[in-house]
Amino acid sequence: MAGEVEFWFDFASTYSYLCAMRIEEEAARRDVTVRWRPFLLGPIFAAQGWNDSPFNIYPAKGRYMWRDLERRAQRLGIAFRKPEVFPQASLLAARAALVAFDAGQGPAFCKAVFAAAFAEGQDISAPATIERIGETLELRDVSKAAVSPDIKDRLRAHVEEAIANGLFGAPSFRVKGELFWGDDRLEDALDRVRA
Amino acid sequence: MAGEVEFWFDFASTYSYLCAMRIEEEAARRDVTVRWRPFLLGPIFAAQGWNDSPFNIYPAKGRYMWRDLERRAQRLGIAFRKPEVFPQASLLAARAALVAFDAGQGPAFCKAVFAAAFAEGQDISAPATIERIGETLELRDVSKAAVSPDIKDRLRAHVEEAIANGLFGAPSFRVKGELFWGDDRLEDALDRVRA
Repeated sequence: MAGEVEFWFDFASTYSYLCAMRIEEEAARRDVTVRWRPFLLGPIFAAQGWNDSPFNIYPAKGRYMWRDLERRAQRLGIAFRKPEVFPQASLLAARAALVAFDAGQGPAFCKAVFAAAFAEGQDISAPATIERIGETLELRDVSKAAVSPDIKDRLRAHVEEAIANGLFGAPSFRVKGELFWGDDRLEDALDRVRA
Repeated sequence: MAGEVEFWFDFASTYSYLCAMRIEEEAARRDVTVRWRPFLLGPIFAAQGWNDSPFNIYPAKGRYMWRDLERRAQRLGIAFRKPEVFPQASLLAARAALVAFDAGQGPAFCKAVFAAAFAEGQDISAPATIERIGETLELRDVSKAAVSPDIKDRLRAHVEEAIANGLFGAPSFRVKGELFWGDDRLEDALDRVRA
């Protein structure tokens, strides 16, 4: 392997969705390993004085984002259906993802959660949804394991690491100490691994 | 010609700089005409409650922007020197650009102003700088013509048109009613002209 890219994402983030669905193929093509790092934008936005997604706070930006996302999904060949609720609460899904990674099913679980949120119109904040996704991967009681103190602490540590590394949005990538932000910087980040 | 792209830019905008230096070549390669539309982000940001660049208001985002800009400029082969003052007041330069377009020197004038701001460390808010740039293109008294009532009205109309069309940042592109935002969407916008 040429090296590793850290992929920081939030299940509530639209562009994280596009990236999650294509990062493994793009990375494999360059012989790069992906280190999936779920985190939460909520605390980072709150520190900037936002109690909602900037796409809701700034309507012109929001309207553009949905149009851009639709165009980009189409171009990349990724299914997309605008969710009725945005942003969805992603705390449970992020915690459950850590459980899934421990069980060796992380990427498949994450992609299933993203597809549920952004292609299938499902409520990923509901334990039943998370449980159902876990079961398709033969993970049992994932929504219960997700609320263990250890998992809670580990997700909190991810958020702290994200802030310490200057992350302010998602998806973000870290390669050799360099930060890249946005699905449209994925290729740059991957190329950096080999540079 | 295959058609036209509207290129909306602000002389204070870092990514507008990168775009201005490369848009004509990229457009020509696709047989697309560029319609340069100077406008001002200030009134648009003010309407969102910002009295400064979001890159200053949100420091993590700002630190990233400068690093991303440096990397991107290097990759595109565009000279870049971080200005001491950011953002620079771009009102005079935007008005002067309208004068330069009337005289058939618009693109050359705009590129010279952008280079002064982002490669040569000059103060583009100063009439003397604008005058000097005009003179290299054999335009006299451009900073005086820039403050005529007609020019002021026309720039104000550009800003109103930008707002009416949902613009919220720069550079932005409009093609057949579709909005694209960011230097990294230039190629998408140009491809749309031919689609």
